[in-house]
Amino acid sequence: MNLFEELTTLLGASQVSEAPDVLQEHATDKWYASHLPEVVVFPKSTQDVSTLLTWAHANNIPVTARGAGVGYVGGCVPIREGISLSLMHMNQIIEINPADGLAVVEAGVITADLQNQASDLGWFYPPDPASRKECSIGGNIATNAGGPRCLKYGVTKAYVLGLTVVLANGSIVKCGGRTHKNKSGFDLTSLFVGSEGMLGIVTEAILRLIPHPKSRGALSVCFDDFSLAALAVQTILQAGHLPSALEITDSFTLAAARNYLGDSIIPESAKGHLIVEIDGRPKAVKEELEEIIHLLETLGATHIQSALTEEETEAIWELRREFSYSLKATGMTKLNEDIVIPRSQLVELVTFCQQLQSQYQVHIACFGHSGDGNIHTNIMVEDYQDPHQKKNADQCVDRLFEWVIDHQGSITGEHGIGLAKAKWFATSIGMPSIELHRTLKEALDPTNILNPGKMGL
Amino acid sequence: MNLFEELTTLLGASQVSEAPDVLQEHATDKWYASHLPEVVVFPKSTQDVSTLLTWAHANNIPVTARGAGVGYVGGCVPIREGISLSLMHMNQIIEINPADGLAVVEAGVITADLQNQASDLGWFYPPDPASRKECSIGGNIATNAGGPRCLKYGVTKAYVLGLTVVLANGSIVKCGGRTHKNKSGFDLTSLFVGSEGMLGIVTEAILRLIPHPKSRGALSVCFDDFSLAALAVQTILQAGHLPSALEITDSFTLAAARNYLGDSIIPESAKGHLIVEIDGRPKAVKEELEEIIHLLETLGATHIQSALTEEETEAIWELRREFSYSLKATGMTKLNEDIVIPRSQLVELVTFCQQLQSQYQVHIACFGHSGDGNIHTNIMVEDYQDPHQKKNADQCVDRLFEWVIDHQGSITGEHGIGLAKAKWFATSIGMPSIELHRTLKEALDPTNILNPGKMGL
Repeated sequence: MNLFEELTTLLGASQVSEAPDVLQEHATDKWYASHLPEVVVFPKSTQDVSTLLTWAHANNIPVTARGAGVGYVGGCVPIREGISLSLMHMNQIIEINPADGLAVVEAGVITADLQNQASDLGWFYPPDPASRKECSIGGNIATNAGGPRCLKYGVTKAYVLGLTVVLANGSIVKCGGRTHKNKSGFDLTSLFVGSEGMLGIVTEAILRLIPHPKSRGALSVCFDDFSLAALAVQTILQAGHLPSALEITDSFTLAAARNYLGDSIIPESAKGHLIVEIDGRPKAVKEELEEIIHLLETLGATHIQSALTEEETEAIWELRREFSYSLKATGMTKLNEDIVIPRSQLVELVTFCQQLQSQYQVHIACFGHSGDGNIHTNIMVEDYQDPHQKKNADQCVDRLFEWVIDHQGSITGEHGIGLAKAKWFATSIGMPSIELHRTLKEALDPTNILNPGKMGL
Repeated sequence: MNLFEELTTLLGASQVSEAPDVLQEHATDKWYASHLPEVVVFPKSTQDVSTLLTWAHANNIPVTARGAGVGYVGGCVPIREGISLSLMHMNQIIEINPADGLAVVEAGVITADLQNQASDLGWFYPPDPASRKECSIGGNIATNAGGPRCLKYGVTKAYVLGLTVVLANGSIVKCGGRTHKNKSGFDLTSLFVGSEGMLGIVTEAILRLIPHPKSRGALSVCFDDFSLAALAVQTILQAGHLPSALEITDSFTLAAARNYLGDSIIPESAKGHLIVEIDGRPKAVKEELEEIIHLLETLGATHIQSALTEEETEAIWELRREFSYSLKATGMTKLNEDIVIPRSQLVELVTFCQQLQSQYQVHIACFGHSGDGNIHTNIMVEDYQDPHQKKNADQCVDRLFEWVIDHQGSITGEHGIGLAKAKWFATSIGMPSIELHRTLKEALDPTNILNPGKMGL
């Protein structure tokens, strides 16, 4: 029997496909790498995943887990072929339980679906990756997903109370549980959060929910200089505010937005832009925004738009989303690097990117989660198909990552390593850490069947 | 050469002791188990720890790391003898950096010292174990310490950005770093947080700081019935409030407080008590407390004391601390079990404890972090030296833990497993999880020199 027949016998025809369009769909994510799996499996239960892994382990067949396939680092690309294991048919919200402050979900649940259902009951699942309307909780767990709100609320791992995980040999482990604190032994849940499907396959999660803030408001703020926006970030935090988002945008991005959306969208003098979001009780939000407006005025803000209703606040976020679309509308290839730097280095980063621009004949657009120092640094290439431009751009990314590592930053804050960042991974974390990664990988997956070939391990 | 001489040669006389009083001091923590180490070592640097572990690994000598020695589960008791490795001479706050939002500290820094120095600069390190004035950051990391504020702010692991860890073989690994987000590979920092010195020895930590809330206020609230206090917990959260603490106390504890402090301290009718703390901007705190007061009145609170200044708020916490002293003042032995239950089970827990009281002729005092379901359940024994009473009390604890496990709770929310909870550990987390603990332990410490004999592994 071939692989397809073996798996059909094992799991039933409804869970297994080798249709060319299905294989093609499971060959890529949002990055450019592509490799066809031999078979795609769609398990319906944890037991199905266990059955599959028990068999794959015995037969030494690679298994690459996949959520919604919207990652940016080729993490779910099955480069060693074998099985693409899609969790997307395990998409039940099993329980939303306000009394226990948690939700129980299968790995294939779409993040926004959980957020909306929780919100309808007055409860809040804060992690908000930009892809939240299409990404899955399983993918969020595999990459420890973040987003703007993580400044105040923390990334995905802060919300994972318990996991059901199938190990490489098919054994099913329940880690953590339904309690908000748990010091029973090692923190096994955190071992799997962010492990990119390389240590085990998460099939179900118990997620912490918190009371939903009653309201939110935001400010859209312009400055004549990026460094003033960066100074505002520091000043707001030092004054004791912990915004639910603090997003910065550089002048290249603002210029692209004017080109795309018209001059009225943002004043031409604006070379730096900040979004400050505050959430909480309605009166408190209003009062805190007033305090921050006063602070921003003393810091030389040239334009402050204030949003107090949900609709006004959403309009400010819509503007922020338009910034991204504006970059795409330039027609250039956008290499989106989700670097993180210590927060004090925001201005140094942008200054360094200006040097890179002239050195490598690219444009660089920086925007993102300034409170976390997590700046999406987009290398914009006129024609990435042109070998000369591609070489220049790739060298530019190399130099950027060198700088980030030299400045005690991280080469990825949200997307993960996967294939895309494997080249810089060892330099970034150092050989003792790489050795420890290998120790863990060999201990949990001795035959290397789980998402093999990733992280350069 | 004997062990003392070998280590003196290796590290110098100033770092090594076998003085009887020093050995005695390092034989115990706050639990009752006691075992003398052969030698106590006081390293001054990560390199010293590496030198020691390289040697201990080659010579197969047990090394039990120790912070301030104020744990509750015998976690630092060197039951296999060998070396007690005290981190308490590595007690430098290396850096407090508001611009980067972090502190860099050695493992022996006292938690309250870090908090006070950060607070002086307007910054906040939230985890607040009751022992914060005497416990060390290294101990907090080993046990993933919590406290009342963790309801809003999360436990220690939410604040660990980076760690310097010495592995069993002496190699030095830097995990994480100075950034607030980091998706570079597996989450190695979380592997060591909560690992009770069994996977590696943490010598230095980079800790996340957040802007210090400008003010706090609190309510001290009495109810005629514990179930009303538990209902208030649910109602406050469901109304969208996320207090910085939500502490519940049962009638036995309240009666002990009246006995100890006088009848005026708390009304005699009070059978349940709640502390609600809110922090934030001063006006917002006041307004939110007013909303909660209104809510509590509709829920039948019989007495509400409101604190709006720092001094008044501290006075309410002082009352809470007196509750603990009052239990000690009964003269009974207090077996403090830091169980956690799903938050909806608060009333069921207290009702079950009432059954246990009559069945096993003990008293049971429940109080603690109700928002997390983390209730310190104190089995009070008149004379724990009496074999009959001891047997009864021990059986009572067995029954309590059975109930907690049956109700999807955790046998420890803050203290850890160590020696004290090893007996129930496997039943609590299940054999697949135990196997995974063993896999990790063997992978990272193949000769089992790091804190051997703990967690029943």
